[in-house]
Amino acid sequence: MSPKSASSALDKLKLVLPDLDKRELVVPGLDKRRGVLPEVDRRTFLFSAAAALAPALKADSTPDLKPVFTEIEKRHAEYLRLIQDWIRQPTIAAENKGINEGTELMMRMLREIGCQQVIKCPTDLHPGVFATLDAGAPKTLAVYIMYDVKQVDPSEWSSPPFTPTLADKPGLGKVLVGRGAVNSKGPEGAFLAAVHALRSSSRKPPVNLVFVCESEEEIGSPHIQQVVRRPDVTAALQKCMGVLTPSATQALDGTVTMSLGAKGVVELELVSTGEKWGRGPKLDVHSSNKARLDSPAWHLVEALASLVSPDGNTILVDHYLDKVRPVSAAEKAMIDEAAKRQDEALLKKQLGVQHWVHDVSFRESLELLCSQPTINIEGLVGGYTGPGGKTILPHRAVAKMDLRLVPDMTASDALAKLKAHLAAKGFGDIEVNMTGGYDPTSTSPDSLPVRVESAIYKRNGIDPIVWPRQAGSWPGYVFTGEPLKLPAVHFGLGHGNGAHAPDEYYLIESDNPKIQGLNGAVRSHVELLYELAA
Amino acid sequence: MSPKSASSALDKLKLVLPDLDKRELVVPGLDKRRGVLPEVDRRTFLFSAAAALAPALKADSTPDLKPVFTEIEKRHAEYLRLIQDWIRQPTIAAENKGINEGTELMMRMLREIGCQQVIKCPTDLHPGVFATLDAGAPKTLAVYIMYDVKQVDPSEWSSPPFTPTLADKPGLGKVLVGRGAVNSKGPEGAFLAAVHALRSSSRKPPVNLVFVCESEEEIGSPHIQQVVRRPDVTAALQKCMGVLTPSATQALDGTVTMSLGAKGVVELELVSTGEKWGRGPKLDVHSSNKARLDSPAWHLVEALASLVSPDGNTILVDHYLDKVRPVSAAEKAMIDEAAKRQDEALLKKQLGVQHWVHDVSFRESLELLCSQPTINIEGLVGGYTGPGGKTILPHRAVAKMDLRLVPDMTASDALAKLKAHLAAKGFGDIEVNMTGGYDPTSTSPDSLPVRVESAIYKRNGIDPIVWPRQAGSWPGYVFTGEPLKLPAVHFGLGHGNGAHAPDEYYLIESDNPKIQGLNGAVRSHVELLYELAA
Repeated sequence: MSPKSASSALDKLKLVLPDLDKRELVVPGLDKRRGVLPEVDRRTFLFSAAAALAPALKADSTPDLKPVFTEIEKRHAEYLRLIQDWIRQPTIAAENKGINEGTELMMRMLREIGCQQVIKCPTDLHPGVFATLDAGAPKTLAVYIMYDVKQVDPSEWSSPPFTPTLADKPGLGKVLVGRGAVNSKGPEGAFLAAVHALRSSSRKPPVNLVFVCESEEEIGSPHIQQVVRRPDVTAALQKCMGVLTPSATQALDGTVTMSLGAKGVVELELVSTGEKWGRGPKLDVHSSNKARLDSPAWHLVEALASLVSPDGNTILVDHYLDKVRPVSAAEKAMIDEAAKRQDEALLKKQLGVQHWVHDVSFRESLELLCSQPTINIEGLVGGYTGPGGKTILPHRAVAKMDLRLVPDMTASDALAKLKAHLAAKGFGDIEVNMTGGYDPTSTSPDSLPVRVESAIYKRNGIDPIVWPRQAGSWPGYVFTGEPLKLPAVHFGLGHGNGAHAPDEYYLIESDNPKIQGLNGAVRSHVELLYELAA
Repeated sequence: MSPKSASSALDKLKLVLPDLDKRELVVPGLDKRRGVLPEVDRRTFLFSAAAALAPALKADSTPDLKPVFTEIEKRHAEYLRLIQDWIRQPTIAAENKGINEGTELMMRMLREIGCQQVIKCPTDLHPGVFATLDAGAPKTLAVYIMYDVKQVDPSEWSSPPFTPTLADKPGLGKVLVGRGAVNSKGPEGAFLAAVHALRSSSRKPPVNLVFVCESEEEIGSPHIQQVVRRPDVTAALQKCMGVLTPSATQALDGTVTMSLGAKGVVELELVSTGEKWGRGPKLDVHSSNKARLDSPAWHLVEALASLVSPDGNTILVDHYLDKVRPVSAAEKAMIDEAAKRQDEALLKKQLGVQHWVHDVSFRESLELLCSQPTINIEGLVGGYTGPGGKTILPHRAVAKMDLRLVPDMTASDALAKLKAHLAAKGFGDIEVNMTGGYDPTSTSPDSLPVRVESAIYKRNGIDPIVWPRQAGSWPGYVFTGEPLKLPAVHFGLGHGNGAHAPDEYYLIESDNPKIQGLNGAVRSHVELLYELAA
């Protein structure tokens, strides 16, 4: 496709915010130096005993935050250790790893910051956690926490991914390296620390809190509905003014991008086998048989090739784009502004790329990022995958895929259209195994949480980029869609990078006055809670 | 493609013999009970010391073979142990495993059967072995031996692949299970045993022997030329009447298929990377970037799809089929005969298939097998290949391929045409890394070795199926092509199965009078040597 035709194709599409993808919040750390208290099961406190043993909380909505900020400074090492300990306890749904331990840790942490009610919510696969902190306040905020992390390949890491390691990053400061550092234990830990800092300053939170936590975010949140749609959880959420996802929102230059939503996603495997196809072999056979036998691997390749244009960029699935909402004038204005304020050269360097798709301009690349649904190959696995070759005709081949969805697409509709396409093109035998996914999510720029976060950023000297929709995904639809229709925001000063990648990090001590480290991140959440209460 | 068009497409093609693919011959066994003799380096004899210490050989060309056959019966356990010990010492070129040990074992074995000259032949990668046994006979026979084996996945095996295990196979007899059992240590061990049995019967072999051995057959024999084209090896081969590859030629019903050649092969990897392409990322990035970035994985899929028709069966590479020699009338007659004598239902069951390509008839499937070049996907490896999914846009994807070639195609020409096709279709950046391969090989049905093997089969009550060309490959072109132009045959009674597959086996003691076990296989080679000498 030429740049011109790509450009005109853009007009049919929509736009989305940059990659504040998926964040998660779990507290694994155990401080072995603290005593065991009977009401916190058989283990030690995560937070300082001084906080847990603080005097009865007194109501205090005075927005003089200096004493709380002093408390945050004082407890810096404690809050850092909390995040470090959390990273040491991975929860990885795709590998069924650390689910119970991570869930227990999540529950303990919520108890220790003052939640009176902490309930484990079983689902058809891995559990979630529901918790409430009733501060007797007139308003209530919901907080979404993912407490799982993405898989790792330790060989790609400079330090062991589950051994949180402090490192100096020139020009940036001291960072904490580990899986989950930025996605999302660092930012989530900062929020928990903020609630803790209030408590250890003998204050009640200025708003009540409702926590909805899940352990399956990284496999596409297949059972989040089973947590959120519980009557007790739904009832609690109906009282909320909105939903917060704690995040590290600052880029390397200190800028912040405020997303008004996120793409939906479907994760699935396409599996081609001789058995299901009824052609080709049911087991791997010698490759010389290709002359007389069909190949399930070729069958998969041809099915894949039918999904997109020969450049791999334009989706050819029938009616797949029918529900794609056109980019609005307001969204176009946001994209224009973002294109001016972002550094294209730096971004290309970070991504390791020389060209955008179709050789479009930076502004157009941003519009595509916001507005275009995608069909992506995450991985290919078929036949012999070891060193060198092996002369077999494999009986099975698999493509691991993700589909990103924009409004008004839905996960179930996208999946149905993909299946219908494969059936119509002669690939109906190929198994389409959806492993997770959900609809897109959107929040109005006029909602209270968005206005509040914007005000806080500005008070901190940051003019946020407002962005229609992040290109990554989170299951915000369970909050923003029917029946709750809550506004949902990602918020938090601070910086990190490497989500889903090696050497993921979260900034702890900043050398750059434009970027906040851990203390600034914690402070920003204290500010948010008071601002929402006001 | 409809059956009709497939059928007419057949007329442009040629035909080949069934799957007596790749065979190998190495003797790893060490008999720890024997004494160490100074001239056989520092290790014990592989064969019985009685044989090694036999009196000076006397010339004896009398074709009364009974004493030799008695010797074979007597030494059955010894010859079985030889093959068992050989299996215990794997040589796997693709994994750089056991090369030195396998080469030393090969050389010791050749010394012990009486070769006066045994020379290690270094190549640019793994070595070969050249050996001569001068029996003072007027005629000389060359013997090709591969002493490497295919890789294994032990989890697929019923017993450890390098622990040779005797098992009872109902209706068949006692089989030896292990990697290399039939491809090719069993049949090659039977040939070595035949030479040994002559020696231990105080006879000289009736023909001189020239051994050409390689350790890279399973990676496509990339350096076989560097062994065969040595002046000393070429000089020795020029004196030969032909080349023997010891094989287990009997099917489950006792029938034998005599191949008059084999397809050539090219093994290669197609590697698509963002780095080489200059598009897409240079490292794996978050999959949400698909909206603005090209994907090297999609690029590979589209390149693959360009190579064949949508059913995966018809090659679309420009001019690829130009040199395919039409099937001759003689070959068509052979195929007609083979189709009548083979059991289609049994074969389909063994292969785990319900249909041939294009739903052709059995007869047509055999013609395709003989005559059609193939482009096969051995394996696909790209991006995330572990359990579940991982939302990345991979920077690299690989397809492991093999191309089977028929006369008058050549490996270098097929490779060049593949590269030219990719370049012409916009995939010139995709690396084409050939790891091994060679031209097709053909031998005249009128040559002496073919006539002799046919006579021996018939004397043993077997009417062999004569087959134009086996669909698997071996590097016979180094012998049958310029400048040597030697006839080359695969010969040997006996049966085995599972080459390149789990639970590979070789029949040791047959319950079926129509199929020979190890003793019959050894005897058949004694017969061959005398018949060739006559």
